[in-house]
Amino acid sequence: MTGGAIVLLSGGLDSATALAIAQQHHQPVYALSFRYGQRHDAELLAAQRVAARMNVHEHRIIDIDLAQLGGSSLTDPAMAVPDAPSEGIPNTYVPARNTVFLSYGLAYAEVTGASAIYLGINAVDYSGYPDCRPEFVTAYQNLVNVATRATVTGSTIRVEAPLLDLTKADIIRQGIALGVDYGITVSCYQADEAGTACGVCDSCRLRHQGFVDAGVEDPTPYR
Amino acid sequence: MTGGAIVLLSGGLDSATALAIAQQHHQPVYALSFRYGQRHDAELLAAQRVAARMNVHEHRIIDIDLAQLGGSSLTDPAMAVPDAPSEGIPNTYVPARNTVFLSYGLAYAEVTGASAIYLGINAVDYSGYPDCRPEFVTAYQNLVNVATRATVTGSTIRVEAPLLDLTKADIIRQGIALGVDYGITVSCYQADEAGTACGVCDSCRLRHQGFVDAGVEDPTPYR
Repeated sequence: MTGGAIVLLSGGLDSATALAIAQQHHQPVYALSFRYGQRHDAELLAAQRVAARMNVHEHRIIDIDLAQLGGSSLTDPAMAVPDAPSEGIPNTYVPARNTVFLSYGLAYAEVTGASAIYLGINAVDYSGYPDCRPEFVTAYQNLVNVATRATVTGSTIRVEAPLLDLTKADIIRQGIALGVDYGITVSCYQADEAGTACGVCDSCRLRHQGFVDAGVEDPTPYR
Repeated sequence: MTGGAIVLLSGGLDSATALAIAQQHHQPVYALSFRYGQRHDAELLAAQRVAARMNVHEHRIIDIDLAQLGGSSLTDPAMAVPDAPSEGIPNTYVPARNTVFLSYGLAYAEVTGASAIYLGINAVDYSGYPDCRPEFVTAYQNLVNVATRATVTGSTIRVEAPLLDLTKADIIRQGIALGVDYGITVSCYQADEAGTACGVCDSCRLRHQGFVDAGVEDPTPYR
């Protein structure tokens, strides 16, 4: 155990797995979620279920005003969420989302004295998003190394993306080995409040294929 | 003119000067301010005055929830604002503040297609804050270079800190040459709603000394 850790927890499959991994290495573990203008609360309800089930030390939900800036189908009701793979960067991309989320994670790490920030981005989840690439994580680490009180006084805060190079199937196998209950997580872009998934959006298709590839029964409730 | 620019506008002397400089090089110019749990609204009222007087294209005020995380006398009523220079990093430091602010600036730049983000940090303002140092700006630029849709598609967004190496007196001379009315700006950590300054906090003393050193009458309303 190497001090506390912050985990960015969306309520999805990946961040729940990142949380389980963080708990193998850190104590206490703090979860941080964001209300950023998502179309529904299904994600945040799932994050609360996951945080409670996995006994995090503290779970904070931060209200952030990204929707005011627009630019994404995930926060703008006037834009349609695509139900087929997109060319290039899909319109579900929220401008600078992971940059903003990590910045709050950094503030929370400074206040709590945590030594790491975990986020559940991975190669499959990349989906064309610029802020889900390995070079993004490296650049953010280099920023953290000069940006905080901790780094001025000689300590470090590590940015950990333990799923970065894993396939969805590998992530699921690892999470199941650590006891993650994927039935309470929500990955769907269009889930309803009960967490029931659409089964057709990009995120649903990637997730279901992961269970197929892992040879594990998919516990996701679909409409 | 090289495309649009975002200016992080606090309502203080420095960011008003950064705005005037940005307007020399960019069109349109967008101002971005933050309600982040400051003890009073004097800063934001000043930002609105400055944005209106200087005819920015658009001024957005983003609500952010940094106070919830605590850790600074600027957002926590239980902590006292120091009225003498501090050893090391003062308790007015808000954890990861500039990292968070720039992240919103980056999102806004992506949505508007702006080619630059201006922020008014400088060597005097440094005050021991880790996120006011040149290495912070360099690291943030390196992050921006990989973090956005724009940078994936081949364009760049520049992080501009034009006051970084200037003394407060140099900043004031440059701003006056560009027509900035410093009488409507507020730098004080404890200003009242009318923008009247305490005259004794770190920020007030640095600002007043700047006018003295520049040989310019200080237009700040003091209590």
